[in-house]
Parts: sequence; C-alpha cells; structure tokens
Amino acid sequence: MKQLEERILRDGKILPGGILKVDGFLNHRIDPRLLYDMAAEFRRLYAGEEINKILTIEASGIAVASMAAYLFDCPLVFAKKSKTRNLSGGMWSVEVESFTHGNTNTVVVSKDYLGPEDRVLILDDFLATGAALAGLKALCGQAGATVVGAGILIEKVFQGGGEKLRAEGLRVESLSRIAEMSDDGLRFC
Amino acid sequence: MKQLEERILRDGKILPGGILKVDGFLNHRIDPRLLYDMAAEFRRLYAGEEINKILTIEASGIAVASMAAYLFDCPLVFAKKSKTRNLSGGMWSVEVESFTHGNTNTVVVSKDYLGPEDRVLILDDFLATGAALAGLKALCGQAGATVVGAGILIEKVFQGGGEKLRAEGLRVESLSRIAEMSDDGLRFC
Repeated sequence: MKQLEERILRDGKILPGGILKVDGFLNHRIDPRLLYDMAAEFRRLYAGEEINKILTIEASGIAVASMAAYLFDCPLVFAKKSKTRNLSGGMWSVEVESFTHGNTNTVVVSKDYLGPEDRVLILDDFLATGAALAGLKALCGQAGATVVGAGILIEKVFQGGGEKLRAEGLRVESLSRIAEMSDDGLRFC
Repeated sequence: MKQLEERILRDGKILPGGILKVDGFLNHRIDPRLLYDMAAEFRRLYAGEEINKILTIEASGIAVASMAAYLFDCPLVFAKKSKTRNLSGGMWSVEVESFTHGNTNTVVVSKDYLGPEDRVLILDDFLATGAALAGLKALCGQAGATVVGAGILIEKVFQGGGEKLRAEGLRVESLSRIAEMSDDGLRFC
C-alpha cells in the first residue's frame, strides 16, 4: 500500500536493535485518515470471505482493528495480556514472546467471545518473528474457530515470521513489507 | 445515551468490589456500531469547539478514541503505561493509580505529540475516582495544551471523580452515569 510505505519512509525512525519506530502515525500518535484507508484495504482484500470476527491483541492493534470491525460490520475481540481482575471465567490462553518489549506475556481470550462459529480475520500492526500472530492463531485453534487470514500493517520480511506462517498455510496480507533494514534506512519488497 | 444505558443493563455484569464488567461490548469484545454511535455523540457534544487532538490512555480507551479521531478528523494520541523500548526522547509523565487493576502506572506522552497549540478532548471508557482523567489532564498541563473537555463512556458517579473534576472547572460529558451500584443491580442518574 503506497500511502503507508511513503508514510513509513517519511515519518518512521529506525532505532538500534532492528526496531522501527512508527510512533508518529501508528503507535502513539495515530493518523485517523490513514487508519481508515488501511482498514478499507483489508476490507477490499478479504471481500467475500464472510468474516464475522476481527481478532487483535492489545494495545497497538486495537486502533486499526476497531476501524476494520466497523467496515466489516462484525465484532472485534482483542486478546488481553495477562489476567486482570476484570476478566473472569474460562479463557483460551497462550504464551507470547514480545520482540519489541523483550518479555513474555500470557495472552488470553474469553471462551465467551471466540468459538467454532467464528470466521476470524486476525489483525496486528507488526509482523516480525510471527510470535504474536502465531499465538492469536493458536487461540483460534483452541476455540475451534476458522482463521480466514491475517492482516498486517508492517511486515519485517527479513525476520521470517511471515514466510513461516504462510508455509503453514495461513493467508497473510501485509500492507507494507520491509525487505531489509539497517541504521541507514530500509527497503520495501 | 439511551443505547449505551440499555446495553449496560442487558450485558454488563457486576463483580464483587464495585467493578462493572463490560467485556461483552466494550472492553474485550467490541461492538463497532455502538462504538461509532458513541464517537458520533462526542462529536455532537463538542461541535464547534475546534478540537485538534484526541487524547486517551491505553488500552481500552483506544477503540472509541480512534473512531472519535476519525469523526473529528484530528490525530489521536494515546498515553502509554510505563516506558517501553520503543519510546525515546522527552516525555510528559505522571503517576496514575488504577482502580481496576489495583496498581500504579507511570503514564507518558511524548513531548513531540502534545504541545501548547493543542485543543484537546480527553476520552476514556470509565470515570470512577478520576485518577486516570486527572492524570491525562495533568499531562496536558505540562504540555501547555488546552483541555477543552472530557468524554467518558461510563461514569460511576458514586465514586466522586466526576464531581471533583467538574468542581475544578473541567467539562466532563459522560454518555452514561451510574448513580448507585450493588450486587443486585445498578441505577442511572
């Protein structure tokens, strides 16, 4: 998606350790027009797939997933990191390692909100090693839900997560795909 | 807002300790039509106020704030809990106690994204003791930004936060206002 690639080149910042900072338009300050256009692109890519649930993970996936849920006209469920006092009852649960934050989280979804009747589109902002996406896919597996596919804003192709998950048969649509990244800059596929 | 009150009565669950669980339509599974209608109501309430920034706090405020930012056609900034590897540079920072989670978080906003030119609408899902809202207001104060007002989905009036902040001169618009709540049920103002 040209608009997103141009925005990444203009406003993205590369930090040491292979981290692409997109706080200026995605992860801290959000541009709602870009948000809408990205959600609309997922709607176009997955037209006709009868998706009846959007699944994402807190926190930074919630914005684009909310807009997508509005355009798909279906509920959004966001998986939660660690159990809070506000969640009770049975949960689907997986362990997910965070590349960005350098820790491991227990990620849960209530059994009330994900089940065999669901045709799920998984949305997330980044795809790097694929740990978060694999975790969300595993939650759907536990629930007996059908994963129609995934939608990603920024795929770091060089970290291999997308390749691995596609090889396992998952449809992954990424709106931007970074082939390589160094302190000097980045190149899209 | 009648639609929200009816939804709370139908799908909300009261947990011991004064916690209202709205996981079924706001905080874990989200109904995007309700989300849109709530954002549109904030747009109506704050029409003509020349708001140029929406401010919320991760994670559960992001959904309604994203939709509102789209309708207000202005950027959304979400304050982050604790410092992550992805945030660098100068920050506005406050300590906020969470009633729901029973802990204290450092809440930060990058100085790049909040400044004296901003006319801010603060949005959040719950208003109870007012700690989160007071914290976001304090961040705006540090930045020299103008707080036009706040928009809340569910105000627990009996916890006093709204009264206190209104007494300090803050305009607070709540889409539902709970006068009292017990294990047997709740009553709106």
